[in-house]
Amino acid sequence: MIRYPRPLQELIENLRRLPGVGVRSAERFAFQMLDWKKEQLQDFARLVGELPSRLVACTECGAIEEPLGCRFCHPSRTTSQQLCVVSSPRDVFSIEQTGEYQGLYHVLEALLSPIDGRGPERINLAKLRHRIEKLRVRELIIALDATLEGDATALFLRRELENLPLSICRLAFGLPMGSAFEQVDSGTLARALSGRRGF
Amino acid sequence: MIRYPRPLQELIENLRRLPGVGVRSAERFAFQMLDWKKEQLQDFARLVGELPSRLVACTECGAIEEPLGCRFCHPSRTTSQQLCVVSSPRDVFSIEQTGEYQGLYHVLEALLSPIDGRGPERINLAKLRHRIEKLRVRELIIALDATLEGDATALFLRRELENLPLSICRLAFGLPMGSAFEQVDSGTLARALSGRRGF
Repeated sequence: MIRYPRPLQELIENLRRLPGVGVRSAERFAFQMLDWKKEQLQDFARLVGELPSRLVACTECGAIEEPLGCRFCHPSRTTSQQLCVVSSPRDVFSIEQTGEYQGLYHVLEALLSPIDGRGPERINLAKLRHRIEKLRVRELIIALDATLEGDATALFLRRELENLPLSICRLAFGLPMGSAFEQVDSGTLARALSGRRGF
Repeated sequence: MIRYPRPLQELIENLRRLPGVGVRSAERFAFQMLDWKKEQLQDFARLVGELPSRLVACTECGAIEEPLGCRFCHPSRTTSQQLCVVSSPRDVFSIEQTGEYQGLYHVLEALLSPIDGRGPERINLAKLRHRIEKLRVRELIIALDATLEGDATALFLRRELENLPLSICRLAFGLPMGSAFEQVDSGTLARALSGRRGF
């Protein structure tokens, strides 16, 4: 392994923290950054340094708040009495992008994962219960990953909340739009079959 | 397109400048950076902001210089009287990594590209000639990309320098190591054939 000058080595190590970025990509990114103009680098540096103070989580819903307050907690969103449970601030934007939902959000702290030792104590259930009550939620939409962790967390939430006077539902599973039959794995196909609807 | 909070949008736009990073990757990178610790973000910011002052090009060879001087211009490298012409500081590290070369380097400012309008005026030929003379170079190794731009630049250098008392050579073209025959394009195969060697 060639020894790079120290700032370059540190830059590469930092860039490797990005998801899916290995040594080769990090090197490519780093060398390209050396071609950025001085002002570009300094603007980028300032931006990154200010992230912790400029992008904070809404203490209410957990999504990213803006200087004028959390747009996802706007009073207009309370009327539908829906609450959508997601596992990251990013998922909030994904759901917004569909244009299909106008209710409130609740970002969970974590997904359960028996394998990684993340148990129910990682989820602030009291806070979720309190919000459901305060907001008079009538429909809880569990919008978690279609993974083992997402399944475990969804089942846990349903078990803990099924005594409350609200309907609990989860996103539909099935064929992704635009997918050819042969590209779809049998697990997905099984869920698409069992979830078939009148047509 | 969903409207992200402004610092997040700016972060995504900055990350899109990295090579091969589109909107989706930049979004993934940006959201993951929001999970970095405050100290990690600030260390990274400091590092990026200091790059222009900490990583400068050697005025002699064009490679990246270090605080104690350019290791690629060390006097021990002059004895072989070889000069290797590359097109970026990164290529210097790639060639060092092979362990096959102990001579000096010359990083060109650009590659010729008639399509992008980069003509010979972009290459400081006088500086290259001056170094060849001063360093009493006996072998000039043209280590440029195997692309149209690399070819054009190599031909240009050969034409301009062939009257000097030195041998000019270019990296070999042929099958990449580990490649199966069927993976190799016919252009590469043609060069491998015409460049065949006694065995």
